Formats: sequence, structure tokens, C-alpha cells
Amino acid sequence: MTTATPASPADWTDGLGLARVLHGGGPVVALRRDGAAKARLALVDGQVFDDLPPLLEAAQGDPAAIEAGAVIDAPDHRLRSPVGRPGKVICIGQNYLAHVHEGGRDTGPAHPDLFPKWHTSLAAPFAEVALPPESDQIDYESELAVVIGARGRRIAAEDAESIIFGYTAANDVSVRDFQFHTPGRVAGKAWDGLTPLGPVVVPAARLGGSRPDLAIRGTLDGEVLQDDRTSRLIFGVPELVAYITTVMTLEPGDLILTGTPAGVGFVREPKVLLREGSEFEVRIEGIGALRNRFVAEKAG
Amino acid sequence: MTTATPASPADWTDGLGLARVLHGGGPVVALRRDGAAKARLALVDGQVFDDLPPLLEAAQGDPAAIEAGAVIDAPDHRLRSPVGRPGKVICIGQNYLAHVHEGGRDTGPAHPDLFPKWHTSLAAPFAEVALPPESDQIDYESELAVVIGARGRRIAAEDAESIIFGYTAANDVSVRDFQFHTPGRVAGKAWDGLTPLGPVVVPAARLGGSRPDLAIRGTLDGEVLQDDRTSRLIFGVPELVAYITTVMTLEPGDLILTGTPAGVGFVREPKVLLREGSEFEVRIEGIGALRNRFVAEKAG
Repeated sequence: MTTATPASPADWTDGLGLARVLHGGGPVVALRRDGAAKARLALVDGQVFDDLPPLLEAAQGDPAAIEAGAVIDAPDHRLRSPVGRPGKVICIGQNYLAHVHEGGRDTGPAHPDLFPKWHTSLAAPFAEVALPPESDQIDYESELAVVIGARGRRIAAEDAESIIFGYTAANDVSVRDFQFHTPGRVAGKAWDGLTPLGPVVVPAARLGGSRPDLAIRGTLDGEVLQDDRTSRLIFGVPELVAYITTVMTLEPGDLILTGTPAGVGFVREPKVLLREGSEFEVRIEGIGALRNRFVAEKAG
Repeated sequence: MTTATPASPADWTDGLGLARVLHGGGPVVALRRDGAAKARLALVDGQVFDDLPPLLEAAQGDPAAIEAGAVIDAPDHRLRSPVGRPGKVICIGQNYLAHVHEGGRDTGPAHPDLFPKWHTSLAAPFAEVALPPESDQIDYESELAVVIGARGRRIAAEDAESIIFGYTAANDVSVRDFQFHTPGRVAGKAWDGLTPLGPVVVPAARLGGSRPDLAIRGTLDGEVLQDDRTSRLIFGVPELVAYITTVMTLEPGDLILTGTPAGVGFVREPKVLLREGSEFEVRIEGIGALRNRFVAEKAG
């Protein structure tokens, strides 16, 4: 059976991207269009990959090096986080001015406000996400995520695109009480499986290069609560790449979560928080939607 | 040629630990005694490993599962960071009261103060460490590092030892001006190659279990500037494991840097900072010393 996905490696038409799909015994990287039930294996030099970092390493970060192979089943529920084991997940706080304002501050930070997650934080784009019983202050954050394609250190803003492979969507689900335990926020941000990512990674060249201007929208149970454009980042993607690579080497598959627009739940009156049965969708133009139902964590 | 290293896997006598040694084309994990010129390959089920996380995974975190193989050359300059690619490097700030005081605060934080490094931050225990030209505010921090041996989530303090493999020493070299860019400190802490680790990882059972009481000393160019005991941590190792694993799964090879004692350089009058030619040694009882000369970064 053939599908609408392209046979040609160069044909990155709108909505096509790299997904990670459960296939046989484990995940494989595949080319998939948003909502499609099928995908095609993503190949570099004829080889199949189980994760994006080694594929991007083999492709040297070049979308044109990726070819489409055999068709496989790829319904939503078989998708996994498009990056399974990134070397780094670097998140940015306070990076849309309206979000800075809703948090009670007049101006954003003087430097990019970095905090970490780790690979254990990531979740599949359509997973049921278990709410940990330790908190009832769990909030959503719709974000554009950068996927690094090539190794780089001390990359000037004007050269940032040279190490960017593409973009995907993320929900930086935040455990607000733990977040405020310490100024670094780490304990509120790095919970296991609370960061849905995906559904696919779309090459930057298809989405406006290093300064994408994409609609980003967060919807809780059908109500739009976040609605902005990625061009309104305080520190744009080039400035983030330049700042981070002053300090450290970025590598293929590393992720930068660029921050969330205004409209998060815990600053609303009354607060809006994720509960058992909540469904939250992060939708980014040109990438697609990740949509997660939140459920009670099963007793261990 | 035979050496003082044991043939028996159970013989973890004082000072023996797991090192990572450049051997042939790359690093191998080996059993080495502090200062020895030779080591023996560390084997699990007869297999050699190039990094500690897969070895610990194979050994299920049990030192008794590790056997000594062939003798190899292992002079100081061939050692690499004993963990090359940890899944997580979690650091703790403000965790000795005298260090809290020297920073101008009366009391330590109410919760463990977590911040990240990544694998790109690590350096070899006897490496020449390049000082980045972007700062002249580079400081030392002697620390005990925990090496996780087994996967665990929601581990109570009293069970912490069940997921700890052992301990090593670290120098959490800190770029103070970047550290204070934002409250999360990340940009001051995650510089490439500024965190020497090692020289060896010694099983916790040899060092007092989950509450080690070890002398820790930091010496700059022969002058002792930090001198304390690891039993004086505000949040002990069991409490750190319990807090971190409330939030996330710890995995074999993950590192926890437990914080630095009083005596850091940037709060001294006058300030003491690392300069070209500085030599800093972190020595921890039962583990050994890591000793690094700081040099100017070569022009790229």
C-alpha cells in the first residue's frame, strides 16, 4: 500500500516531518504527515535509526540527506517522543513579554533564563500523561522546541541556522509548588514523563529558518488559553543558540524549549490547572498538534 | 607484569576504584588504585566497557559483579572522566552551612537547590583545563559526587543506598559572572570541560554507605582553601536521593554533585580566582585527588 508521503528525500512539503514510531520491537524514525495513519522509514545511507540524535549525526544535520523507505503503520498512538534520548534539554523561562507581565514583572530577564529537563522528562505526543500524586498544582505551557542538527560551539546569532535541524512542539508541564522550592525551578520542571514532545520534527528551512513566525496555540478541553506567534520571543532562536553555545557545545538531537506565551493556568483568577481527564493540545503552524489526556497516576 | 591491583572482584581495598583509561583507540573502564601506573580491565560477565553507565547497568549496580581482567597502562595522563556520558548531572547549591554563611545568608535553602550540568561539562581528573576567554571570574568548588548504580524512582531516604554505586570527587568550576546572569545559575555552571571528575569511583560500601564521613580538601597552588567533612552536608546523600527521585528516575551512571564546603574564591577578600598556571587539587579521603592545571584557551 502506498501513501501520501513522498518518495523523494527533498520533498519536505508542509506538515511532513520526522516522527518516532513504535514498529515491531521498538521505535524507528520515520517520515510522517500530521494525522496520517502511515509513515515511511527515514533512511540515511540506507540505514534505519531508533532515535533522532544518531540519525541527525549520520545526516550531518542536512534534511536532504534523509530518504524515504518502506511504508509502516504510524497511527497517533504508536508515536513516541520524536527525540528519545537527547544529550541536553535546555528550557528558557520568561521569553514572551506578555508571559513576563502575567507573572507580575515589567521586563524580561537581561539574559536568557535557562533551566534543564532530562530525557526522562519526555513523553509521547499523544500519550496519556500520568499526573503525579505529590502535587495538585500542575500547569501547562505550550512551546516551540528547537532540534539541533549539527555540533557547534560559539555560534554567532547570524550563523545559528547552520546548526539547527528543525522544530517541534512541546508542552512544558510544570509542577508549580515544586517549581518555587528554589530559584532554579528544576524540581518543578523535570518530572518523569511530563513533557510531551512532537508529533514530528520539521526542517527549519520549511518554517522560516532561524526566525520562525508560526502561530502557537494551547487549548484546554476545547478552550484556547494560549495564542501567540513564535516571532514574539524576547530572545529569538539565533540569540538563544549564540548564548548557549558561548557556554557549551550543542550536539545533534539536543533540544531547546524556547519558552511559553502568556495564558498559563496558575496566574489566572481562578487558577486553571490540569486535572484527571483534562485534555491539552499544543498546536504549532506547520508542525501539527500534540494532544494529551491527563490521568491519575496508577498506584505503584 | 603484575601490579598491586587485585585479581579478586570482592577485594575493593582502600583506594581501589573504577577509572576510565585511554587504551588503544578509546577509553575503557578499569580498576585502578590512586596514583598507580597500571590498572586492570573492569569486566562484567567477561565483557569490557567504554563507559560506566553501561557497565553499571550490566552489573546491576553491584560492585561484586565486577571482575578484574588484563593489566593495562594507566598513568594519570591517560585517565578520562570516570563517567563519560551520564544521562544526568545534577548539582546541589548551598549545601554546607559555612558556605551558605560565606555567601551572606543565615540559613540554607528549605529544599535541595538543584542545578544542571551536562556530559559536555566533564573533564579528565588530571587534564589541563582551558579557561574560557569570556570570563575572568572563574572559581573552584571541591565536591563529593554520587554515582548512581541502579534505576530508581521515589526512593525513600532509608533505601537510598540501594541505588547508589559509589562516590568520586569533582571540581564544580564556576564562571561567576555568567552564574549571576539569572537565578538558575545554569550559564555559570555548564561550561564545556570545566568540571574535572575522578580519579576513580569507589563503592559506597567502602566509604560509609549513604552517609559518608570523609575529609574533603581543596588546595590551590599548595594552599589549602577548602577543608571540611562530607558528613556536614545540609541535605545528606539519602535526602538528596529521596528528593530527586520524587521528581525523576535516577539511572545507572547518573551523577549528583553534592555541593561545596566553605572557602570558595569569589567571596574572599581579596578574591581568589583561577588564572593561567593555577593548579587546583580536590582530595577526598578514600577516593584520591584530582589535580588540574588551568591554562589559557587556545585560539579556535
